[in-house]
Amino acid sequence: MRAVDLIRQKRDGGALDGAAIDFFIAGVTDGTLPDYQASALLMAIVLRGMSPEETAALTDAMVRSGIRVEYPAVTGTPVDKHSTGGVGDKTSLILAPLAAACGAYVPMMSGRGLGHTGGTLDKLEAIPGFRTGLSLSELRRALSEVGCAMIGQTEEIAPADKKLYALRDVTGTVESIPLICASIMSKKIAEGIGGLVLDVKTGSGAFMKTLPDSRRLAETLVAIGRASGVRTEALITNMEAPLGRMVGNSLEMIESIETLKGQGPREVEDLSVLLAARMLIVAGLEHDESTAITRVRAVLASGAGVEKLKAIIQFQGGDPRVVDRYDLLPGAPESRDVVAQADGYISALLAEEIGRAAVSLGAGRGKLDDVIDPGVGIEIVAHVGESVRRGQPVLRVHHRAGRGLSDALPLLDRAVQITDEPSAARPVVVERIGAR
Amino acid sequence: MRAVDLIRQKRDGGALDGAAIDFFIAGVTDGTLPDYQASALLMAIVLRGMSPEETAALTDAMVRSGIRVEYPAVTGTPVDKHSTGGVGDKTSLILAPLAAACGAYVPMMSGRGLGHTGGTLDKLEAIPGFRTGLSLSELRRALSEVGCAMIGQTEEIAPADKKLYALRDVTGTVESIPLICASIMSKKIAEGIGGLVLDVKTGSGAFMKTLPDSRRLAETLVAIGRASGVRTEALITNMEAPLGRMVGNSLEMIESIETLKGQGPREVEDLSVLLAARMLIVAGLEHDESTAITRVRAVLASGAGVEKLKAIIQFQGGDPRVVDRYDLLPGAPESRDVVAQADGYISALLAEEIGRAAVSLGAGRGKLDDVIDPGVGIEIVAHVGESVRRGQPVLRVHHRAGRGLSDALPLLDRAVQITDEPSAARPVVVERIGAR
Repeated sequence: MRAVDLIRQKRDGGALDGAAIDFFIAGVTDGTLPDYQASALLMAIVLRGMSPEETAALTDAMVRSGIRVEYPAVTGTPVDKHSTGGVGDKTSLILAPLAAACGAYVPMMSGRGLGHTGGTLDKLEAIPGFRTGLSLSELRRALSEVGCAMIGQTEEIAPADKKLYALRDVTGTVESIPLICASIMSKKIAEGIGGLVLDVKTGSGAFMKTLPDSRRLAETLVAIGRASGVRTEALITNMEAPLGRMVGNSLEMIESIETLKGQGPREVEDLSVLLAARMLIVAGLEHDESTAITRVRAVLASGAGVEKLKAIIQFQGGDPRVVDRYDLLPGAPESRDVVAQADGYISALLAEEIGRAAVSLGAGRGKLDDVIDPGVGIEIVAHVGESVRRGQPVLRVHHRAGRGLSDALPLLDRAVQITDEPSAARPVVVERIGAR
Repeated sequence: MRAVDLIRQKRDGGALDGAAIDFFIAGVTDGTLPDYQASALLMAIVLRGMSPEETAALTDAMVRSGIRVEYPAVTGTPVDKHSTGGVGDKTSLILAPLAAACGAYVPMMSGRGLGHTGGTLDKLEAIPGFRTGLSLSELRRALSEVGCAMIGQTEEIAPADKKLYALRDVTGTVESIPLICASIMSKKIAEGIGGLVLDVKTGSGAFMKTLPDSRRLAETLVAIGRASGVRTEALITNMEAPLGRMVGNSLEMIESIETLKGQGPREVEDLSVLLAARMLIVAGLEHDESTAITRVRAVLASGAGVEKLKAIIQFQGGDPRVVDRYDLLPGAPESRDVVAQADGYISALLAEEIGRAAVSLGAGRGKLDDVIDPGVGIEIVAHVGESVRRGQPVLRVHHRAGRGLSDALPLLDRAVQITDEPSAARPVVVERIGAR
């Protein structure tokens, strides 16, 4: 088999068979396929697409580039949740402890912030001492002892994905549903889960801006998961405005703990509870959604959820006292308000603009080697649907010595939209794909 | 400017401006643009195309990656001919001496065999001692003293093209009209010519199989040449069957010399004379085609053409006695006939199959580092339109110890097509583009 023949085949709109895809991924993994051939093939895939069969074969080859983790000491079905990326989307930090407190096993491997969207690992690392880089044996022990770990991708998990992603990032080949789906699902399948709940974001702040595109992404992800024997379903949820009231790493950690204490914003609590309930269902622990929701709400109300978070932090080397002492989390020394330009109702808080403003303050990375400032971020004082008067604060910018403020403020001014009349509230959950 | 932004722009169907194209080609030339980014951009160009403006800018940037040769000692306008590649297409070897014998200056830079099509350099190197690798100063001296040189691309000529071509060859990005046109024209423009006649082949044995595709290629090439101040025109000529009766390096050298002696096949002579006449016109030496043809035919008849070939061979270190002693050219020790399977008329001799058979015998290269065997090749005993009887030889395969014969014979059997009735003769020149 010659790489140039595969490239030409895909370039001309043909389909690659399993052997061709295995050849490609094996060559990427062991370095025998030169980067210049891999990138030409990636661009051909971006522009020509891949069939569901090709995408499943690509995912499978990427899983097989490393190991598929097993948990011999765990008797239940490990489950996970994955979000396609949003602004203020901190539900992982809430639902993982909730599901684990209900008896589920959650080996959650997450990523870092990407573009304008935040990353679970960055948020966790706001906690002093917290280690996201557990080894596989530590992960297995965490599952047996705590029921949950929240870690980064280990070396053994889909190494081909790691190499391909680095190449895609610099060759303009990120934006492709088959490549995105294979990247997401190979990591999740290799984690060794038996059930997966996907939170596919839709709207101007999401990777997929329209409902049909989000639906197509969700359907592809669900089909891949099922083809690999993972019980997979997806919720499509709204990402026009940030989720909750906090954007930034320490700020989102605080809001997550507040939610676990029953004091978080309603939409954050509701979505976290629903996703945790669906995790119990794909784990086979519950069969009926309302019963599952009742079970999750019980551990929320009893404080078992927040106790589970403490146990996770403890296991992973962090300081569990942060759960009661937010002053132990890094903060930002200064703040500045963005005020309403008119009387009226907040009709939109554009998530992408707010996410990009947070990145420029230092909450995310412009380049791969940028260092995150966990303390900075944006607090939403008045959310969509609320009434404001001219001059009243809408957003509170937590910054450090003005860093990034000159880029952030124009974005935030554009993000806030005010109308005379209140607009109809949009539901958080827009649609479900593959939920039984 | 960031390479990834250019790649994304082209990927999404946008046009690259002159600055972007300069950045790309400068990076390729000095090696600062990694190959994996160049190949991703090349694939995006293959699939998204380039506007005429982009193609002109790309050509210009590739010319500027090296020098544009000048000939201070030459008073006339240097001219050249380029063919898009055919089987048995040896007109360069005939028309260059003819045009030079008429007073034109011909600094002809040619290539090697590519795929199933032959290359002028490989044919010339069948002559013992012949050096195609002249320096620029030798080229200039050849033009002053002989009026013509037939050489390979020098290091100073479009170095970006050389690097890009090597990358395109292994990344499935050869087949693109803008990239092909920029590659051809950058080398020709950098040669320092003021006039160019293109022989764009069309038909099953050509790179462009259909007349509309060939026309598009010809129009693009002519537009680029004119944008760079080169008086450019194109003939579109038939490449269903090989041109003439010889395919292979020594064999084509012999047929070319025979044609210069007035003893070649009619179609080879006629096309060579017409192309040489058009070269006189773009050189400004003649204005009227029939006068130009008369002038070319006169040097053919007087023997001045074959004398010019001798002078070229002499200047470039070859043995000029080959012109009268074909035994000085390498031959093949053995031959085998491909015979007619039925009585009838030869309706087709498929050029691509015959070209591929010649490559497998050793007349061309399967891989870049294969060594050419100048002696082997295929002689056409009965050409298209001629009548044959079953068992009578149609092709004579000149081979060395059976090398490649098992691959060549099935191709040649398929190449020969016989019908009961004679078919109408097809003209060699199908169309003209930009000829005034």
